[in-house]
Amino acid sequence: MTVESQTVSIGEFEFQCGETIPDLELAYETYGDFTGDNAVLVCHALTGSAHVASRGRFEEGDQAYAWWDDIVGPGKAIDTTEYFVVCVNVPGSCYGSSGPSSTNPETGEPWGPAFPPVTVADWTDAQRALLDELGIPALYAVVGGSVGGMNVLEWAKRHPDHVEKIVPIAAAGRLDPQCLALDGIARRAITTDPNWNGGNYYAESDGGEHPDHGLALAREIGHVMYFSKSSMERRFGRRAATREAERAFPTDPAGRFFPYRDVESYLDYNASKFVERFDANSYLYLTRAMDNYDLSSGFESDADALAAFDGEALVMSFTGDWHFTTQQSESLADALRETDTGVAHHVVDSDYGHDAFLVEPDSVGPPLSDFLEEGLHGNAVSDTQESEDEPSDFAPVHNSLFSR
Amino acid sequence: MTVESQTVSIGEFEFQCGETIPDLELAYETYGDFTGDNAVLVCHALTGSAHVASRGRFEEGDQAYAWWDDIVGPGKAIDTTEYFVVCVNVPGSCYGSSGPSSTNPETGEPWGPAFPPVTVADWTDAQRALLDELGIPALYAVVGGSVGGMNVLEWAKRHPDHVEKIVPIAAAGRLDPQCLALDGIARRAITTDPNWNGGNYYAESDGGEHPDHGLALAREIGHVMYFSKSSMERRFGRRAATREAERAFPTDPAGRFFPYRDVESYLDYNASKFVERFDANSYLYLTRAMDNYDLSSGFESDADALAAFDGEALVMSFTGDWHFTTQQSESLADALRETDTGVAHHVVDSDYGHDAFLVEPDSVGPPLSDFLEEGLHGNAVSDTQESEDEPSDFAPVHNSLFSR
Repeated sequence: MTVESQTVSIGEFEFQCGETIPDLELAYETYGDFTGDNAVLVCHALTGSAHVASRGRFEEGDQAYAWWDDIVGPGKAIDTTEYFVVCVNVPGSCYGSSGPSSTNPETGEPWGPAFPPVTVADWTDAQRALLDELGIPALYAVVGGSVGGMNVLEWAKRHPDHVEKIVPIAAAGRLDPQCLALDGIARRAITTDPNWNGGNYYAESDGGEHPDHGLALAREIGHVMYFSKSSMERRFGRRAATREAERAFPTDPAGRFFPYRDVESYLDYNASKFVERFDANSYLYLTRAMDNYDLSSGFESDADALAAFDGEALVMSFTGDWHFTTQQSESLADALRETDTGVAHHVVDSDYGHDAFLVEPDSVGPPLSDFLEEGLHGNAVSDTQESEDEPSDFAPVHNSLFSR
Repeated sequence: MTVESQTVSIGEFEFQCGETIPDLELAYETYGDFTGDNAVLVCHALTGSAHVASRGRFEEGDQAYAWWDDIVGPGKAIDTTEYFVVCVNVPGSCYGSSGPSSTNPETGEPWGPAFPPVTVADWTDAQRALLDELGIPALYAVVGGSVGGMNVLEWAKRHPDHVEKIVPIAAAGRLDPQCLALDGIARRAITTDPNWNGGNYYAESDGGEHPDHGLALAREIGHVMYFSKSSMERRFGRRAATREAERAFPTDPAGRFFPYRDVESYLDYNASKFVERFDANSYLYLTRAMDNYDLSSGFESDADALAAFDGEALVMSFTGDWHFTTQQSESLADALRETDTGVAHHVVDSDYGHDAFLVEPDSVGPPLSDFLEEGLHGNAVSDTQESEDEPSDFAPVHNSLFSR
């Protein structure tokens, strides 16, 4: 299999906010060979990178490292012997594409907070520009999870004639206010860390300290959003941490009497790894893009926004996901049904939570593979409208069957 | 109605952790007249105070101010013309009872982090000691919501012969790991605020700054836990803040392009009020007490822990509450059923969230009042075991009806 990993410059780029930068760099990977009609764009999630697969080629680092290696590869659900797979690190991120931590060519210093705000539309346009560079006029499919699924939707909205099939996974037309609140709190954690310093913390002259405490808090809040209650119960329960865990931050003296719990230790450990690999300003920029995303923006409705797309859509969701709920995916599927787009909403029964799209390849792979190969009538593809006994109104997430 | 608001010293107090303080002060209020068998202890929630009712007598301040004025008073659900109501600020808090912000008589300085860690058992024992001072040998009822409901359970566990009726509302035998995680993150927000300074921030010589940024973050995380997804949707949606809102903290420059949302503005405003009224160390101490609470601790099971209690119990829960879920209340009711205690689990259909116990007096009042007056067969008291069609297994909270 041919794997390419590079960074290209696509020149001056105007962001949706109206600001421009002289030279947008995009880090991307491609897998397989382009045959003219087999290009599949894979969109990464909030803190992901272009390193979608090929475990072992790059340095390890959570989501950023071969984050969908179980899905993308030879003989896998997105079969790289058949499809030409492209994955691009989004502008605003910190994995090779231009963002606040990259260098402003005019000053020779990191952009910092002077980097323009980014939106999901900007990501989409940057991807379109990269595909032009690569000589790819149209995509066979766009696939992505979480905010990467919003990126997928934006493709159907902005470039409806350039894509045949879309697969938004664990996504939604917009975040709900509970998630907006948690993202806002996460940003506040970063910006009130004194080391954030208005976003200027890269240079030694800024003190040399990064806002690690704030970014760690932001990550921990995010991490809780990726689990379900029951997956946390199963994984951690209330037990004390077993490993000799040293906290990397001050704690209250009551810690001498109360246990350091496994769930805290897990979040703390992962946050400490995260701050080593991710840039705090990028976290601000990318959560802003996610929070601000609204599929219907500029249109009357979600259905309107998707009306020009006449390909096929596989909407996939997970029952235990409270970050992007099954109900939100159903509403998205309804919008597509309204426009007479061929659509299936495939619900995976999983209590893992939002991260199921990353960690349950056995659930995600078969419907994805069959949809790419055979379309909506693929064997493993199911639809919520298939079963007669499906309730027509969905229980609000966080409520129980006691709800009457 | 006779209302008394005072602070008494109950002398040396040994905490569960083994540490003692020379003089535990307790701030409390009483309403009505004690007739020998009509005492009702009301237990406040995490950031509450002894000011349970009598709006107008005290300075306003969220939960701390007449927090159950719609429930407690003449002719109300807990009728103060009939019952002698006692409410005590818990040790470790900052509303008059001894806690980290109160003065250590031996040094003349605030205790700070030298104050002993507190537990729900300590609260219960302190309340028992106060009742001794007041000449109240036994309680007719103990009523409380949230961690105040844990306090109620601890009464049935530690002093089963001193209470006839218990009413734990929106409570549980223990927190689940999702809530433990969020509380741990909230504490980390406080302790990583440089102004926390190891818990020493009261004296001018400590710099005079309090860890307001950290406490605000902690409060905002808590606040999200008190709402349900649907109540946030209804209340805030995704709209921008309407008032001319000035953020009291640094924000990312992308704020120039993206809206300051109503939900953020609401949380920020409330957090700014909260840091004026609450002590950061108390927040650490009280969340530790809540997180650490386990009804079964020292026993084989919850049922075992409650076996000696032979009064009656009304367990109340709210369908939209994901902080303390209906499922957890049902599990508590099951434990009481196992011990042949008379119990009803009254489920209120409400999508408000955890705070429903504070803000929906029309739902809480009638079953509470009828239970106190007539017991389990009171008109407005319902039980999950009454209806034939009640499902025997409950949907995990955060899952939807799609779950199969």
